[in-house]
This record gives sequence, C-alpha cells and structure tokens, in this order.
Amino acid sequence: MHFTAQTSFDDVVERDFMVGDVPGVLWSPATGSEGAPLLLMGHGGGLHKKAQGLVARANHYVSAYGFTVAAIDAPGHGDRPRSAQDQQWVAALLHAQAAGEPIGPIVVEYNSSLAERAVPEWQATIDALQALPEIGTEAPIGYGGMTLATVIGLPLTADDSRITAAVFGGVFVYEALTEAAKRITVPIEFLLPWDDEDIDRQSGLDLFDAFASKEKTLHANPGGHHQTPWFETENSARFYARHFGRAATLAA
Amino acid sequence: MHFTAQTSFDDVVERDFMVGDVPGVLWSPATGSEGAPLLLMGHGGGLHKKAQGLVARANHYVSAYGFTVAAIDAPGHGDRPRSAQDQQWVAALLHAQAAGEPIGPIVVEYNSSLAERAVPEWQATIDALQALPEIGTEAPIGYGGMTLATVIGLPLTADDSRITAAVFGGVFVYEALTEAAKRITVPIEFLLPWDDEDIDRQSGLDLFDAFASKEKTLHANPGGHHQTPWFETENSARFYARHFGRAATLAA
Repeated sequence: MHFTAQTSFDDVVERDFMVGDVPGVLWSPATGSEGAPLLLMGHGGGLHKKAQGLVARANHYVSAYGFTVAAIDAPGHGDRPRSAQDQQWVAALLHAQAAGEPIGPIVVEYNSSLAERAVPEWQATIDALQALPEIGTEAPIGYGGMTLATVIGLPLTADDSRITAAVFGGVFVYEALTEAAKRITVPIEFLLPWDDEDIDRQSGLDLFDAFASKEKTLHANPGGHHQTPWFETENSARFYARHFGRAATLAA
Repeated sequence: MHFTAQTSFDDVVERDFMVGDVPGVLWSPATGSEGAPLLLMGHGGGLHKKAQGLVARANHYVSAYGFTVAAIDAPGHGDRPRSAQDQQWVAALLHAQAAGEPIGPIVVEYNSSLAERAVPEWQATIDALQALPEIGTEAPIGYGGMTLATVIGLPLTADDSRITAAVFGGVFVYEALTEAAKRITVPIEFLLPWDDEDIDRQSGLDLFDAFASKEKTLHANPGGHHQTPWFETENSARFYARHFGRAATLAA
C-alpha cells in the first residue's frame, strides 16, 4: 500500500492510497486513531469510493464516533478502467431497461463477476490496512454498504473472519447471495427500503431470514434504495459500536 | 387527578396517581421536568403499570433522556378489578390454549373490549397530565408499548391528535387494528419480533404497511415478543427525541 495524496479538514484526515492497482481512500481521526475500529465502506453500483453519500457518512463516522474508514473502487468503477466484458454488461443493462425487458439475468451475471473480483481486492486491502501501525491486527473491523456494496460484502463477510459486524441492504437477491448469508454468523444490521421499485420486498425479507447470525436486526423505511434516511447512519454507527465492544462517542 | 404516593431514587421521582378510578404512575426527572416530552407507556397483556420491564424503560427514559413518563393499568389489570366478563374471556383463553384450540376469536373479542374501554381512560389521563403545571399543553406527547399496549395505542393514536409519535409492535392483528393504522399519520416505529411463535410474521409486516405515516420505521429482531433487545429501548428514545424536536441527552 502506498499513499498518493493527503488532505484534512476539521478533525478528519483523508488519504488516497493504492493497493496494487486498486485505488482507495482512508479517513482517520486527526488524533487518537490508534486502535480505532476500522470500518470498510462499499459504494453502490455505478458509483465510486468518493461518492457524495459515502463521503458524508465516512466523515461522520470518523468525527462523531472515532472510527477509521476505508473505501475502495469496485472493479470497473471510479478511477478504474472498465473491461470490455463489463462494458458489454453495462450496455446490456441499459438496453434491457430501455426496452422494458427483465434485467435480472444480466444483473446476476454482472454482480457475480464483480463480487468474485472484488472480494480478494478487499482482502488484500485489509491486509495492507492491518500492516499500518495505527491500525494493526487488533482493531475490530466492520463492513457496510447497500446495493453493490452488499453484493460484494456478503461473500466477503462470509469468507473473511476478520469482519465482525456488517450492515447490508437494498440488494437484488440471487442464490449465491442467499448462500453467503447462510454462512454469516456475525451480527448484522439489514436495511430494507420498503418501497423499492426495482427490488421485490419479499426477497429482502427472505435474505434477512437467511442470515445465520444470532444477532441480526432489520430496519425497514419507506422509500426506494436511494432514500435510506440519515438517522440510519447514526443507527449503524451505534450498531457497530455495540459490537466493537467500546462505547461510542454519541452525537444527537 | 390526585397523587397517592411519592418515592424517588437517583434522579427519578415516582408518583402514583388516580384519575377517576384508574390508577397510574408518573415518573419525572427530579429537576428540569418543565416542558419535558411526555411519554405514555402501555403495559403488555396480563401485566400492569409497574411491570418490571416497563419500569426499567421508564426510569431510563427519565434519567437518560429527560422525558416524563406515565403509565396506567389497563381495565382488569394491575390494581383494577376484573369484571365477570373479563374473567370469562381470560378463562376461555386459558381453556383454548390448554386444549390447543385457536385463540384468535377470543383474543379479538377481549382485546377489542379492552381497547374500547382503555382509550377514553388514556384520554382522561392525558387531560389530567396536561393540567399539571410542569407538563401543560405544550409538551410533545409520545406513546409506546407492545402487545396489549399496541392494541390500545393504535386506536388511541388514531383518535387523539395530541400524540405525535408512537412505538408499536408484537401484536395479534385484527381488522380494527389495521383500520386504526390506516388513520395514523404521525411518525411510528414498529417492533417486529421475527420469530414470534404466537403471531404470524406476515400479519406484522402487513400492519406496518398499513400505517399512513409518511415516516415509519420497522425494526425486526430474532426472538419472540418478550425478547425485544434492550438496544431497541435506546433506539425508541432517539426516535421520540427526533420527532419531539429536541436533541436528547444520549447515553451510550
């Protein structure tokens, strides 16, 4: 891992980094970041590591809760080149949507491929982050993010025991995701957009049901998957803090 | 309203009261209760205004969030005599349960009757509480409680515009409750025990769906309706605080 840029404002330090050819960003408290919980945040489909909502949540988690937050670009997203095959999938998606044809089969293929590539990238990123002296191997690690971030986060959390709490939601469900959920035993919080026009409500309820986690909590709110209310950001922070085993500095 | 007893411990003052022949209890902060939000808490079926869980939550809401909390005994519960008809319903319930017969029809009759009697009692209690100088008519009012408290709270909240936020959940659903939910437009938080052995999960999801509230949030957790985790008490306090329009004093 090497850092390529650093800025800071208020009490948050933002550092861009590369792990191999994967670009990422790390937000840390300006002081007192030693041993802080590490939160891995995924971005949504078509977005990137510095998408507006992700940056807002990351900064809040750092400044209000003292977490360290990392995000990376998914394959073919943000600063990363999109492969010819990815371009074909995206074109097929746009075509199907415009034609009013079912997009499910394309989504499953494309998302499966993205997850397959992204999981080892996240694992290499965790390795690199844990090699930083201010993080180390003792800091508890959480994962969070909806839509594409959940597509990637489910197999990642099922496979990597370093992640001990996760927030998921708003995802188009297919069998591999349900199978990953069945292998997850760490505490999870699941955000279900109650009026998602693209994703069947029951499929979200079934996915929540599939988690093997003894502690899991479902939060449903009116609206689509881009309309999750801000107070869920606070709820998620408290969820992480509860399971990271330290009292969070709570903001109103 | 007249007060019949007063005790205090830590920073919480507990006063027993009577409104007509309905006994209640009021928990207030020892200092600074003027204009504090008023939270009406219902108790579960077969329980009473000083049930252990209710008292624990009430004290926490007062000491950690500065709310004033009131509870009253439902008809035939706690310190109140049980009518001959109520006794018949209870006997019929116990008989049906022991015989493995469906209890639904009895529950609907009994709960409907309890709600019909309890709603005007709560309204008289609100009148009396608002006549207290330290509460008055400006304090925002919330309602909360599961099972029987939801049976009573749904028509109460639908009928009484003084209640501006409510927490419900874990209830055996029948048509009158769904109709009440459809008339409720204030923010609500709905607690759904995910593995309730007595209450069909889908009926809870349908009831949540029925609320006309623009802001409503569903929290589902594993376990039955007596196993709602304590962190939901904190979540509910923040939910009320959010809608009462004042920053709560937040505890970790």
